[in-house]
Amino acid sequence: MTQEIVLYETVANSISGMISAGTLRPGERVPSVRRLSSQRRVSIATVLRAYEVLENRGLIEARPNAGYYVRHRSPPAGEPSISNPPAAPHLVGISALVQKVLDSRRPGVVSFGAACPGPDHMPTTKLQRLISSIARRKPLSLTHYVLPPGNEELRRQIARKSLDLGCNLAASDIIVTHGCMEALNLCVRAVAKPGDSIALESPTYFGLLQILESMGVKALEIPTHPREGISLEALEFALDRSRIAAVIAMPNAQNPLGFTMSDDNKKRLVKLLDRRGVPLIEDDVYGDLHYGDERPLPAKAFDRSGNVMLCSSFTKTVAPGFRLGWVAPGRWHAKVQMLKFINSVGCPELLQLAVAEFLANGGYDRQLRGLRRVFRDQVSRVSAAVSEHFPSGTRITRPAGGFILWVELPEGCNSEELFQQAIRNNISLGPGVLFSATDRYRNCIRMGCAEPWSPRIEQAIVKLGGLAQRQL
Amino acid sequence: MTQEIVLYETVANSISGMISAGTLRPGERVPSVRRLSSQRRVSIATVLRAYEVLENRGLIEARPNAGYYVRHRSPPAGEPSISNPPAAPHLVGISALVQKVLDSRRPGVVSFGAACPGPDHMPTTKLQRLISSIARRKPLSLTHYVLPPGNEELRRQIARKSLDLGCNLAASDIIVTHGCMEALNLCVRAVAKPGDSIALESPTYFGLLQILESMGVKALEIPTHPREGISLEALEFALDRSRIAAVIAMPNAQNPLGFTMSDDNKKRLVKLLDRRGVPLIEDDVYGDLHYGDERPLPAKAFDRSGNVMLCSSFTKTVAPGFRLGWVAPGRWHAKVQMLKFINSVGCPELLQLAVAEFLANGGYDRQLRGLRRVFRDQVSRVSAAVSEHFPSGTRITRPAGGFILWVELPEGCNSEELFQQAIRNNISLGPGVLFSATDRYRNCIRMGCAEPWSPRIEQAIVKLGGLAQRQL
Repeated sequence: MTQEIVLYETVANSISGMISAGTLRPGERVPSVRRLSSQRRVSIATVLRAYEVLENRGLIEARPNAGYYVRHRSPPAGEPSISNPPAAPHLVGISALVQKVLDSRRPGVVSFGAACPGPDHMPTTKLQRLISSIARRKPLSLTHYVLPPGNEELRRQIARKSLDLGCNLAASDIIVTHGCMEALNLCVRAVAKPGDSIALESPTYFGLLQILESMGVKALEIPTHPREGISLEALEFALDRSRIAAVIAMPNAQNPLGFTMSDDNKKRLVKLLDRRGVPLIEDDVYGDLHYGDERPLPAKAFDRSGNVMLCSSFTKTVAPGFRLGWVAPGRWHAKVQMLKFINSVGCPELLQLAVAEFLANGGYDRQLRGLRRVFRDQVSRVSAAVSEHFPSGTRITRPAGGFILWVELPEGCNSEELFQQAIRNNISLGPGVLFSATDRYRNCIRMGCAEPWSPRIEQAIVKLGGLAQRQL
Repeated sequence: MTQEIVLYETVANSISGMISAGTLRPGERVPSVRRLSSQRRVSIATVLRAYEVLENRGLIEARPNAGYYVRHRSPPAGEPSISNPPAAPHLVGISALVQKVLDSRRPGVVSFGAACPGPDHMPTTKLQRLISSIARRKPLSLTHYVLPPGNEELRRQIARKSLDLGCNLAASDIIVTHGCMEALNLCVRAVAKPGDSIALESPTYFGLLQILESMGVKALEIPTHPREGISLEALEFALDRSRIAAVIAMPNAQNPLGFTMSDDNKKRLVKLLDRRGVPLIEDDVYGDLHYGDERPLPAKAFDRSGNVMLCSSFTKTVAPGFRLGWVAPGRWHAKVQMLKFINSVGCPELLQLAVAEFLANGGYDRQLRGLRRVFRDQVSRVSAAVSEHFPSGTRITRPAGGFILWVELPEGCNSEELFQQAIRNNISLGPGVLFSATDRYRNCIRMGCAEPWSPRIEQAIVKLGGLAQRQL
């Protein structure tokens, strides 16, 4: 027992030393419990005790499903609180502003506005080799239509990976799409018609809102906690009150809040919707970019009736340029497959084969490990810099994965004006109003942290902080 | 003058001799007037006179915009007459049968049901080289999102080619899409909403009907002549009677009838719709595969107000596997561009660059010349074999381009049953009911002739003819 006390104090002191020396910076993740236990050859219990001590000293903090992190010091930016959107469904009208943000994506601009991973983190050399080799070995892939559901080898590889997701999908459950966006479009079209209402998290990814906008489907925004996710109580209340055609959710590393729901809540969500026959369209595009030790399960893992339509993609993890995604649409399989044909016939087989071979030859897991480390690091650096340089009272999310931060500026800041000012300084960002159908989040911004950390990024954050300060 | 008479008789006799020797077969095209005039060093007038003589003798026939063809002998299958669909808009419900036809596309099946060109006629070696070289030279094309409107170089090349179309488009007028189908989807979404009616040719490509079906838009089928195209009188009558949100038409080498409208009628169509502010969605996907000497103009060439939305693709001509198309949406440009982002974000840059370089380096025109010759030949062989082996009373279209035949079997034949019987014999075809929203064309079939002519194809036609005969 005495020996154990000495041990956990030794462990705690050595981590604390790394923090004060700056080896571990604010916002960075400390080694996982498992890893430290094996590195130091001490028990899991000892490491847990050591981390408890460090938490008590205010040096580190636990984040659900994401491990322990070095706490920010001065100013320690708080977290946003749960959202409070109106309880009625609304038609969406955000596309004009989205176009402005898309137009701001040009060379030379520090693009906090974008949510696409930069080329630096992608397996370019491997992709080049695969593309050349497949074009040579399988010339038919250039001159051949692959009709839905898509190339069988790719679907087999996705099915194989689905074991890690606790899903146990078969190749025949999967339909290949032009990225996750086409998958989401097809799902919405399969289950909703114009005039219907769809419930979703608030704030949520603007692309989802635009799908509804383009179809004349109303958005019903549900209060959402920045760490716990969509409020199941509020959702249940909404389901009791209104006819809801479907729910769209991102239970893992949500865009823009970054939370990952607990397994218990995912299970409750699936049950709640299954009982009422309301389909769940699940966007898991950031699920592979979790910061924790274990791949968080998608809600689909708890689906027993085919009521969950799981959408994902390789655009955030392997090959943004290929625009390849997939959907496992459960009991809407036949309908979604036909809608895929109607929407765009098929996907390029050359690119499908390249991803299939990349998945088959084991490069994918290594690629993900690297990406997770890189994005976690970049997010924590941006977070630390925002804490330091943004006006006091700024709040920041603590993402459990992905490469996106949601920043709540003090009341009085106007993110649309900030966007206009920033863009004149060659900095782009996502104005908060894009993430709601009801003109909320005026004082919020989404910041993508996919670009490698550099002094240029830090200067841009300092500049943004100054611009925001001037609004107050 | 006497010399001229001798000349044209000599010319006529030599062509007539080639026909009786079987050098020129029924359904095949005789040399163009211009070409024969330069080969034989006689005047254009002499050749025209010679062809008039051959027409009078019943040996050749003129086809509008497509030149002169050797006439079919026994049995000389007639042409279908103008269609007569009901005058009210109808909701579409054909997707279940379409799925059956798509499922019939498997190895070993003679696929008259498909309308995709086979790999044999595509520039495979060039595409392989381009893909490898671009992957090496432009690695960013693998790891980079290209947002709408798409890769600038490809759009520049399409704009350059648009001079041949009499359109004079700028790169900024063009949006790259996942094939022509995505382009058509985006156009329909831009101008129509559920419950609206869209007028189109009858019969028409089932994919167009399915787009309307998937959106809850009604189809108003307009009587269409198998050689002249959509009846402008009937269309005008319909426009006077009902609110029509848009017209979709394929003025060049229409699918499935194969006609090319005259320039005069295209002009009238554009004016008619422009006056009323009803947009024309033009599907020109087969326009490059014309059989005549000149590239027929799209209706867009007569558009002065941006009322025509021109859609096309490289899937029928260069690289079916790339699924790359484009749209010049006129005054709906901004809306279509945003809808493209919402529908599928962007298109793969690697493939866009490959097509751009293929267009830039002059391979495209040669490729088209070859394809046009091949498809014309295949269509004429299938047409001759159908004339010979199908039940008497069968009628066949005389396409002006493309690789599709529309065959009207005698009353009493049921093409859906014929499809079922054929597929048991490893032959697929397009049952006529697919090409209408109102359950017409039960005794018609569409036959794709993209597969190279072979004894296997001939045997399949003999078999189909026998199956059809047994239905009578």
